[in-house]
Amino acid sequence: MESKRIADLNVSSRILLGPGPSMVSPRVLRAMATPVLGHLDPQFLTIMEEQQQLLRMVFQTQNELTLSIPGTGSAGMEAALCNFIEPGDQVLVAIMGFFGERLAEMAQRYGALVDRVEKPWGEVFDPVEIEEALKAKTYKLIALVHAETSTGALQPGIAEIAAAAHRHGALLVLDTVTSLGGMPVEIDAWQVDVAYSAAQKSLSCPPGLAPLTVSPRAREVLHKRKTPLTNWYLDLNGLEKYWQPPHAYHHTAPISLHYALREGLRMVEEEGLAARFERHRFNANLLWEGLDALDLPPLVQPRHRLTTLTTPQIPVSIDDLAVRQRLLEEYNIEIAGGFGPLKGKVWRIGLMGFSSRRENIALLLAALDQILR
Amino acid sequence: MESKRIADLNVSSRILLGPGPSMVSPRVLRAMATPVLGHLDPQFLTIMEEQQQLLRMVFQTQNELTLSIPGTGSAGMEAALCNFIEPGDQVLVAIMGFFGERLAEMAQRYGALVDRVEKPWGEVFDPVEIEEALKAKTYKLIALVHAETSTGALQPGIAEIAAAAHRHGALLVLDTVTSLGGMPVEIDAWQVDVAYSAAQKSLSCPPGLAPLTVSPRAREVLHKRKTPLTNWYLDLNGLEKYWQPPHAYHHTAPISLHYALREGLRMVEEEGLAARFERHRFNANLLWEGLDALDLPPLVQPRHRLTTLTTPQIPVSIDDLAVRQRLLEEYNIEIAGGFGPLKGKVWRIGLMGFSSRRENIALLLAALDQILR
Repeated sequence: MESKRIADLNVSSRILLGPGPSMVSPRVLRAMATPVLGHLDPQFLTIMEEQQQLLRMVFQTQNELTLSIPGTGSAGMEAALCNFIEPGDQVLVAIMGFFGERLAEMAQRYGALVDRVEKPWGEVFDPVEIEEALKAKTYKLIALVHAETSTGALQPGIAEIAAAAHRHGALLVLDTVTSLGGMPVEIDAWQVDVAYSAAQKSLSCPPGLAPLTVSPRAREVLHKRKTPLTNWYLDLNGLEKYWQPPHAYHHTAPISLHYALREGLRMVEEEGLAARFERHRFNANLLWEGLDALDLPPLVQPRHRLTTLTTPQIPVSIDDLAVRQRLLEEYNIEIAGGFGPLKGKVWRIGLMGFSSRRENIALLLAALDQILR
Repeated sequence: MESKRIADLNVSSRILLGPGPSMVSPRVLRAMATPVLGHLDPQFLTIMEEQQQLLRMVFQTQNELTLSIPGTGSAGMEAALCNFIEPGDQVLVAIMGFFGERLAEMAQRYGALVDRVEKPWGEVFDPVEIEEALKAKTYKLIALVHAETSTGALQPGIAEIAAAAHRHGALLVLDTVTSLGGMPVEIDAWQVDVAYSAAQKSLSCPPGLAPLTVSPRAREVLHKRKTPLTNWYLDLNGLEKYWQPPHAYHHTAPISLHYALREGLRMVEEEGLAARFERHRFNANLLWEGLDALDLPPLVQPRHRLTTLTTPQIPVSIDDLAVRQRLLEEYNIEIAGGFGPLKGKVWRIGLMGFSSRRENIALLLAALDQILR
């Protein structure tokens, strides 16, 4: 106890251009310094209600059961699956990258009988292929990723996939971790049943909360469960009683992160969804042009690219790790490497939320040019 | 999108004297406004390592596997149980309040065959009674609460209970949510196998992280699991690979909350554990004297009282809710009511961490005197 070895917090100001966390606006950081309220304080209950309202705006939904899971994006993924899966349920997972794999793994842990349809990493499904797979048997649900953070690919045709799922009696669970707040996510128009995201991607808030929305159809499935859910912390039956009246105690909400998410969502509302999506598109185009000029062409075909996350291919002559280390140490820029089959083959460059600014792109391209030349 | 209905964040400065969250020091609040690092940034990995070192200090342990679960206290409770329980395991839960009940419920969800020993709320076990119960069969683990947040009672004799558990081949899982950082918690000296807490109680940090420590004996049990764990997010096998080398990606850590917890733990180290426990004891005594003078005697016998949380009995002539409402609205003071059998019968007054200050006690007693007279 004598030795005071741990010094004052003193971190570098990183330019976060990886797959998340993205940079957090000073407005949002400041909100976190607000004194803490109790988790059942009437003022805090109002903040939760306002947050729900803002989440409905960004998810483009009227779903009553729209809230934030008190954990990071993976907790949102787990909540979106485990609440709707009972042991022995048939589940279909469409996999085109790392997070599709994670969906399959989690579903299996909860006793689902999982069938997989797969695409090589970097490609996407034709909705018709998914409808074909749905014909194999009666699935309780199909889960897939909208914006694959491991590859930079955007799955198109979500409305068609949802319609196919419903024709075959399945719910659609959609991962919008890397799209929500940066690209259109239209839960009601597309008829998605369960969608989740993460605060630290295109919403540009600190990590620790996972927005989640549940359609009336899925909510009915939830309330008709026959077996109790193993998971206590992520049990939506407990969570909904806290978020909605009677506001019964479930867990102690991470108050400061809720302050931050509320502020970040207000910034989304102020900018407007359409303008925000256009900003992400415009900036992604600048990045793509710059990468092409550096002979670092993105892996994904232009029409299936995320505007929030780009995956340039690394020429074999270039040392992945060494470049990323120089970017971090010499320029304070964080980008990420690839996972699994893409390890060493692509970088992952995020332009999400507050990170999606012209100055960041100009700097990154200049730094890459200097390092690679 | 047109109507900008959600106003600037503007909350009252509450004096938090409930069972948590406790008040957060401006130093800790300020730490949260620090720009976000990536969750795999070498600087962040250092912050995690420093946090582990500080957590070992406050848990009084050398346990290598000491970390923070990325969720609130209940997530810590769930992690402490689910990682060590396989379906069909025999589990003993000693229950003397709401959180003992929650332990039993969670253990059951993971397929444990749960036996219960119980005490009326407000009382504690004689360690001999627990040893008796341990003789009934061979238990995989026994779980109990050290400091019962629902009653204000402190379970004595944890070292004797741990010794008894080990004589009978069981692990001891201990809830230190309301004791850690405010009262002695001696993991190694007492030979506790798994203990968890919450950031927002006597550590006085914002909610959202749950410190957890695992003895080498329990870690061996963890690594010898035969069945895969259902819970993905709280799986210690994934978490330990992130916290220790190779620092493999598991989830995106709630960076800002880690900044806060590190700062709060530094304040614990600066004050010194012994001085901090003495402050809590001294202030609790002041509160108890004041409550006696107001004819609001605490429920728990003096020798079993928590110094971090006191439960004065409410005379039948007094309207529980009306008093709490006036405290909140007129004085900005939050205290809490009772749960279950103690609903309407006690208040719960927390003096934890930064909330345990003489001025708060003087104000609360003055406010109660004015309201009750």
